[in-house]
Amino acid sequence: MRFDVISLFPETVAKACDFSIIKRASEQNLVNVNCINPRDFSLDKHKKVDDTPYGGGAGMLLACQPYLDAYKSVEKFENSQTIIMSPQGKVFNQQMANEFAKKEQLIIICGHYEGFDERIIQKTNAMEVSIGDFVMTGGEFPALCIIDSVSRLIKGALGDEESFEYDSHYDGLLEHPHYTKPREYDGIEVPEVLLSGNHEKIKEWRRLQQFINTKNKRPDMFEKFLKSELSDYDKKLLKKNNML
Amino acid sequence: MRFDVISLFPETVAKACDFSIIKRASEQNLVNVNCINPRDFSLDKHKKVDDTPYGGGAGMLLACQPYLDAYKSVEKFENSQTIIMSPQGKVFNQQMANEFAKKEQLIIICGHYEGFDERIIQKTNAMEVSIGDFVMTGGEFPALCIIDSVSRLIKGALGDEESFEYDSHYDGLLEHPHYTKPREYDGIEVPEVLLSGNHEKIKEWRRLQQFINTKNKRPDMFEKFLKSELSDYDKKLLKKNNML
Repeated sequence: MRFDVISLFPETVAKACDFSIIKRASEQNLVNVNCINPRDFSLDKHKKVDDTPYGGGAGMLLACQPYLDAYKSVEKFENSQTIIMSPQGKVFNQQMANEFAKKEQLIIICGHYEGFDERIIQKTNAMEVSIGDFVMTGGEFPALCIIDSVSRLIKGALGDEESFEYDSHYDGLLEHPHYTKPREYDGIEVPEVLLSGNHEKIKEWRRLQQFINTKNKRPDMFEKFLKSELSDYDKKLLKKNNML
Repeated sequence: MRFDVISLFPETVAKACDFSIIKRASEQNLVNVNCINPRDFSLDKHKKVDDTPYGGGAGMLLACQPYLDAYKSVEKFENSQTIIMSPQGKVFNQQMANEFAKKEQLIIICGHYEGFDERIIQKTNAMEVSIGDFVMTGGEFPALCIIDSVSRLIKGALGDEESFEYDSHYDGLLEHPHYTKPREYDGIEVPEVLLSGNHEKIKEWRRLQQFINTKNKRPDMFEKFLKSELSDYDKKLLKKNNML
């Protein structure tokens, strides 16, 4: 999978990708992060990339020429998706991560400080994507979040030990609580069932904790889960605990 | 504002904070990002920070001792908030950013690869915060998003040119489209009203575009906006365009 990141801070993005799962996946040639600086494409003699807004107002706007020429310079793969980081975009979620992971290439356009000239969005036909309902200085950190969450879905990127099948959000539920050694830490003990060695009971306890956790912390997710196609196992367990 | 980030990758966090608004705010002593590595606190002879889960299952879990000792080592300010990055947390948004910006200190605990021993959450009394409904390898990139979005709200961090009052989400609406030079780019012209010099008309056009943009792209936000206390100006404009 190839990520092309169009950003005024290519070094920051490249450095931040040089760790953990993205680094490992890069070394295995599973992913390749390529950064492009629109400033290198500016035809302005001072390498300017922004200008004042038509109609007046504070701030500057990122201009068409450097961004669109940078975009044009990127080799496009057949199965490619272009996104533009924007607080106005569709909010990124696991489903979107799954879709992006099926592509050969994700081109990510990042703004910084300022808004984009609207025509950059029109000309690239980019999907506007937001990382959430909050404002940031630039698209760099959100782009890193997306690169990370997509990279780990690529076959081979995670070790066997790090299967994502038990992740929160994987099947629409939050995780159950986890405990490791020691059995007692500063007065708090590990729930007894986890020490019982009874695998059926442990499985049931964990699934029930997932239900309880999701119901308490994310009632919106739990409601959706209840409306989805439930397994017989889940149905029985939910009924037994008066949750269905 | 002091950020204390507890992470197994302190250099990655520190390097990523060395750019743009966070760097500038650090140089002005408006923010201070301090990174703490739980591995430095591990009492294990191999500096191990994780262990196998009670009850079985794949993967490893971050253990109480190194994380809680790292947490205890952080000097706590009076007006301090501790958060733990977790896909199970409350989803971060602008309102939360505004609340965090009022604090003197934000302590951010990041996991990596693995889950936390539940007792780390209990003992720190940390607020679980999620960056969104998707899974990531670690809390580092989400922590960076939070540091950025909170830092820019601190008085003096943004220059005059970069007021956040016009940001998307600031008043519950998305932004209007922006245009800068040239007047025509590759066949697409700037809307005429923006060239008219009529400030009243420009203001009205922009506000209307905000309504339209939000209604089309984020109907959930638009519905909330309509239920909020509307100004007379907004009410009149909405009615005129059959949106109220």
